[in-house]
Amino acid sequence: MKLKEIGIIRSPYKRREDAPRQGKFSDEVSILKVHEKYSPGLAGIGQFDHLIVLYWAGKASREVLKSCRHEDKGVFATRSPARPNPINFCVCQVVSVNRMQIKVKGLDAVDGSSLLDLKPYLLDLDCPFDHD
Amino acid sequence: MKLKEIGIIRSPYKRREDAPRQGKFSDEVSILKVHEKYSPGLAGIGQFDHLIVLYWAGKASREVLKSCRHEDKGVFATRSPARPNPINFCVCQVVSVNRMQIKVKGLDAVDGSSLLDLKPYLLDLDCPFDHD
Repeated sequence: MKLKEIGIIRSPYKRREDAPRQGKFSDEVSILKVHEKYSPGLAGIGQFDHLIVLYWAGKASREVLKSCRHEDKGVFATRSPARPNPINFCVCQVVSVNRMQIKVKGLDAVDGSSLLDLKPYLLDLDCPFDHD
Repeated sequence: MKLKEIGIIRSPYKRREDAPRQGKFSDEVSILKVHEKYSPGLAGIGQFDHLIVLYWAGKASREVLKSCRHEDKGVFATRSPARPNPINFCVCQVVSVNRMQIKVKGLDAVDGSSLLDLKPYLLDLDCPFDHD
């Protein structure tokens, strides 16, 4: 199972310690720069207000199984990027779509992170609780 | 970027065409069988009602960029497993946790799929809309 980089993330966070613990609680804008080869896959993406962004947290340890902050917790019980497969997941608000560049709010990726996948966020599907 | 299989999914869906288009709309139970090597990572996971499950849709085409069902849509504007990185994402309801086996509802994985990651679902973080 080998991953392909479908794009690069440009974010205001140059180092891991600059990034918010969770992107949702920040108004900073990041840019998803999708590689030209994959741009046909973006057709129709402008209709969605929110996207699920999967990216590779390449600087995170893949050997850690217990949380560094809470010793009684395993990594699968945390949202830490340190885990066997450091695939980070953020629900992001779409600010604008301009060909292969998508501006989003709510991302916590370090600048230069590899983009892995984009999916539309669908409330009926992705929120397990009642909503209006 | 090479992925590690952290476990195997046992599901009632033997073939891709048996699986529901979206697992949320099914009451079937699937079992996440985490490999022993990764079991320390599960500590504390029993406290969560819902988990984000990432798995590898190994039978999906990785070359498709336009939706087969809607020609005007790119794969990143759909939830189809066919995409450059077939990492499927489901928010699942936890039925029970028994050591390395987690029973869940709401998964659409074919039996034998490779489990990639588990994360707690956190409403404040993962639902972009207001909720009670």
